[in-house]
Amino acid sequence: MNSDFENGIVILGAGNVATHLSIALKKAGFLIKCVYSKTIPAAKTLALKVDSHYTNEINQIPVEADLYIIAVKDEIIEEIIKHIKLKYGVIVHTAGSISIDVFKGRFKNYGVFYPLQTFSISRNIDFSNIPICIESSNKVLENKLSNLANSLSNSVHLINSKERKWLHLSAVFASNFANHMYSQASEILSQSGVSFDLLKPLITETAQKAIDNDPIKAQTGPAIRNDQNVINKHLEMLKNNPEFEKIYRILSDSIFTLNQKKENK
Amino acid sequence: MNSDFENGIVILGAGNVATHLSIALKKAGFLIKCVYSKTIPAAKTLALKVDSHYTNEINQIPVEADLYIIAVKDEIIEEIIKHIKLKYGVIVHTAGSISIDVFKGRFKNYGVFYPLQTFSISRNIDFSNIPICIESSNKVLENKLSNLANSLSNSVHLINSKERKWLHLSAVFASNFANHMYSQASEILSQSGVSFDLLKPLITETAQKAIDNDPIKAQTGPAIRNDQNVINKHLEMLKNNPEFEKIYRILSDSIFTLNQKKENK
Repeated sequence: MNSDFENGIVILGAGNVATHLSIALKKAGFLIKCVYSKTIPAAKTLALKVDSHYTNEINQIPVEADLYIIAVKDEIIEEIIKHIKLKYGVIVHTAGSISIDVFKGRFKNYGVFYPLQTFSISRNIDFSNIPICIESSNKVLENKLSNLANSLSNSVHLINSKERKWLHLSAVFASNFANHMYSQASEILSQSGVSFDLLKPLITETAQKAIDNDPIKAQTGPAIRNDQNVINKHLEMLKNNPEFEKIYRILSDSIFTLNQKKENK
Repeated sequence: MNSDFENGIVILGAGNVATHLSIALKKAGFLIKCVYSKTIPAAKTLALKVDSHYTNEINQIPVEADLYIIAVKDEIIEEIIKHIKLKYGVIVHTAGSISIDVFKGRFKNYGVFYPLQTFSISRNIDFSNIPICIESSNKVLENKLSNLANSLSNSVHLINSKERKWLHLSAVFASNFANHMYSQASEILSQSGVSFDLLKPLITETAQKAIDNDPIKAQTGPAIRNDQNVINKHLEMLKNNPEFEKIYRILSDSIFTLNQKKENK
């Protein structure tokens, strides 16, 4: 392991990102000095997993750690930054949509350590292929944070705040919205008595196709063929569910429009 | 191999489904007697792959084959059914959204053989885990078609026309619409200079999570947290792209609504 942060790491937060990141750091040999969370049971649960102290009082956080990782909900980040005290350590946040400038004027060495993945506490995750996006207040720190990231993952990237906010927005489409399409498929099937299991090979292959090729080129189905016959049948089937009907219509139009745009290029 | 269709199979169509299904049948030891397509080059290309005759004349199709598989665009199916002549063989189509009744009154032994997957000609595919949905005009044929399907796949299901049309609709959401979310993510990133590669582990994990759990329970992100701060930032970023902005808004609302509905149950 590298020795940049040997005086230990403080984790602020005990949610999905905080949990998976702490466990990965612990596994990589780093010392987790303290877990902070407003809710003691959450702090304690994570602290036990990574062999750490814990607290729900921000002024009880040790001031002599080498690294402070803020992994809380976006809207609490500024609040934490206002109240946290540290002697010489580095402070980073893990948020896709928050600029590095949130630290400006308050700290000397600060940065962003953004693991681009969808995390759930109950789900094991292999950090080694998760892209970690690094941004830093200075070059020396950039190297240190890159080394830290390299000890967790083979996919480390220097991404500035502007790039990161576009990356985060695109991730909402590729993950949250794609998952919502699975949810809607599940809702549709639950009314027909057919098992969602039948869709699983299709979901896997659709994702794999988009990864192996360009998703725009990989598109299939009635919308890209502009098969109005099938589209109208589907809209008719959804007429008792105006929300799903609207989404079906808008996305079918959008698939066709994007395809036209690409073909005309 | 089973001997139900030993006098050979005629494939009508030379597109994605026709190609992959013919190759899988050939591999499983079946004789492909003839490939029919309106376009000779397509018919020839597929015929060469499966060691078969080919024609673009519907009245040149051999009348003494055991099985006729229609794998053409939905809107041409009825046209083919009107003109095809066969002596004793079985006829099936492969379409998700077309009822078995399309054959009624014209043939004695007919059915549906619907492989639920997204096919692209250029992409190799393992048929063994693809769900094949069977429907038949009678029990004897149901067994024969199930045996045929079992020789290609470990996932064979008896699905009637009503169930199949819901399955097909749900597949549009789970595959075509999910893929469009990847396409939109790709479009957003292409303007920011960040590589789409960074999203690939996220896409894989999102699909895997939905498969291992319930996608509705697996949802993460700003919409399900009702994080208006992030949502408004994203809408602001999309203000020059009204179509993407509208989709972002509608899908965020829909994620939140579905979650509320589930929590109130």
